[in-house]
Amino acid sequence: MDNKIAVVAFGGNALHPEHQIGTIEEQEINASEASAAIIEIVRNGYELVVVHGNGPQVGNVLIQVERAADEVPPLPLYTCVACTQGSIGFMLTNSLRKECNKLGLNKEIATVMTTVVVNGNDPAFEKPTKPIGPFFNEEYAQRMAIERNWQIVEDSGRGYRRVVPSPIPSDILEKKVIQQMVENHNIVIACGGGGIPVMFKDDEIKGVEAVIDKDYASSLLAQEIGADLYVILTGVPQVAINFGKPNMQYLDTITVNEAKKYMAEGQFPPGSMGPKIAAAIKFIEAGGKEVLVTSASELGKALQRQGGTYIVR
Amino acid sequence: MDNKIAVVAFGGNALHPEHQIGTIEEQEINASEASAAIIEIVRNGYELVVVHGNGPQVGNVLIQVERAADEVPPLPLYTCVACTQGSIGFMLTNSLRKECNKLGLNKEIATVMTTVVVNGNDPAFEKPTKPIGPFFNEEYAQRMAIERNWQIVEDSGRGYRRVVPSPIPSDILEKKVIQQMVENHNIVIACGGGGIPVMFKDDEIKGVEAVIDKDYASSLLAQEIGADLYVILTGVPQVAINFGKPNMQYLDTITVNEAKKYMAEGQFPPGSMGPKIAAAIKFIEAGGKEVLVTSASELGKALQRQGGTYIVR
Repeated sequence: MDNKIAVVAFGGNALHPEHQIGTIEEQEINASEASAAIIEIVRNGYELVVVHGNGPQVGNVLIQVERAADEVPPLPLYTCVACTQGSIGFMLTNSLRKECNKLGLNKEIATVMTTVVVNGNDPAFEKPTKPIGPFFNEEYAQRMAIERNWQIVEDSGRGYRRVVPSPIPSDILEKKVIQQMVENHNIVIACGGGGIPVMFKDDEIKGVEAVIDKDYASSLLAQEIGADLYVILTGVPQVAINFGKPNMQYLDTITVNEAKKYMAEGQFPPGSMGPKIAAAIKFIEAGGKEVLVTSASELGKALQRQGGTYIVR
Repeated sequence: MDNKIAVVAFGGNALHPEHQIGTIEEQEINASEASAAIIEIVRNGYELVVVHGNGPQVGNVLIQVERAADEVPPLPLYTCVACTQGSIGFMLTNSLRKECNKLGLNKEIATVMTTVVVNGNDPAFEKPTKPIGPFFNEEYAQRMAIERNWQIVEDSGRGYRRVVPSPIPSDILEKKVIQQMVENHNIVIACGGGGIPVMFKDDEIKGVEAVIDKDYASSLLAQEIGADLYVILTGVPQVAINFGKPNMQYLDTITVNEAKKYMAEGQFPPGSMGPKIAAAIKFIEAGGKEVLVTSASELGKALQRQGGTYIVR
């Protein structure tokens, strides 16, 4: 193995932002832009694994499943996640291929369906908190609670929604295959949507009605394949403390201990930067060397140490 | 590379037969049975690539897409194929993993999203013939013909249906990756549903509104990765000539020239055995050694040369 390995993670909203309706044509254009940014990692000498989220996309699949539920047996949530690994994986494979051709990079690119193990005793299963899929009226929601064993919450006047557990990933079943592929100098798209959640039950592997945070999944993948660099793409070029306040301060390089201190201070909101920094800390504490948090547009500069926030030992 | 390589192909109806409603629970049970049969190939000393069809599954995705079309931008057909590579690939990965564990086979298993190139000058594009997705009433069908540029046919009183081209596959973009994975002794699920059809346009790779026959796609994959054995699973234990007639004769081993003679005689109907034998002939004529056509339940015996139909040079 000559080259260093990088794992990069970004959200499903990078391909389907809220202000777009999310046609595949729109998503393909966004995938092209994302790929043009991400390929900088390869140009900087790394082997590359790409992890993407799937929030808006799996939300749409869940609507489609529900609207046809009288005609087509509804798919379990884990199957819907598998679908989005396919559809998003294809877009990214395709757009990364285009970038490689443009730059004359002789790389094979492939998407691997990725299965991620969670533990049945994860406290997330006791209190599901992650809302997914469409809003329903009360009647439909109550019926689904009975017929399909859904946990339901009311979402501040907008209707009723299913909530599912978001357990911590404990192992990635395709880790060895992904590592081999990277060692063969291929670009790999893996762990899409945080991976298809499964549990071991009586020696069998069973799909689980849950979603896995793609930040935690990508951190685990980076640990398991021994990545040298873990890149988290987000909407901002740098991590800041005292965000939005007069004393806001952008961070260039911080140690994992500083990151933990800021986390403890509540500097990073749970819904956005929080899980990213937590995922970064996990990677470093598991033996990883460095994490880069930045935006797609700043990634090229950040890889040259002229931007972004690095989190180090 | 020590071991010989086998590619096995079977239809999407093996997982979702017509007499079932096609819940994922049903399909998972069928996947387990299919995997228990297929694993015999590994026990007989081959490295294994599994290709599956997706007819019933993509039909259901198309219904879901259509029923939610007012809320969620409809997915192109090639995206729907990508979805089924994800959902079916997960089921097969899982069930093959279970079989390997049961037999103490130390194998990694992974599904690779597979992109298959077709040519724009394929005559299939001039006259689309493959009906896909749900039946519509005339009004909806005519509207889609205008709004989404669909080709529509009336299906013998059952309503109107979209027809799409089924072009011949010319290349598999993930062939090198799949070959590497197999050479690393992994079991690979690839080319699901015949692959995601794409074309080169102005140096870009674009998804195409078409479906690829999984028999032709699996034959091409077997050729491109230099498979030693190409296995086609079907509903019958052996190929027969004069099928259903008093002089019906099952075939043990035939040469490719005999197969071509029987094809020319019209012994194999276009909708079922025809494309399978055509795919077998292509494999042998491209330099392949032997093809085995048999049923899942006879596969173990057939691999021991005690059943099935072998087609050889």
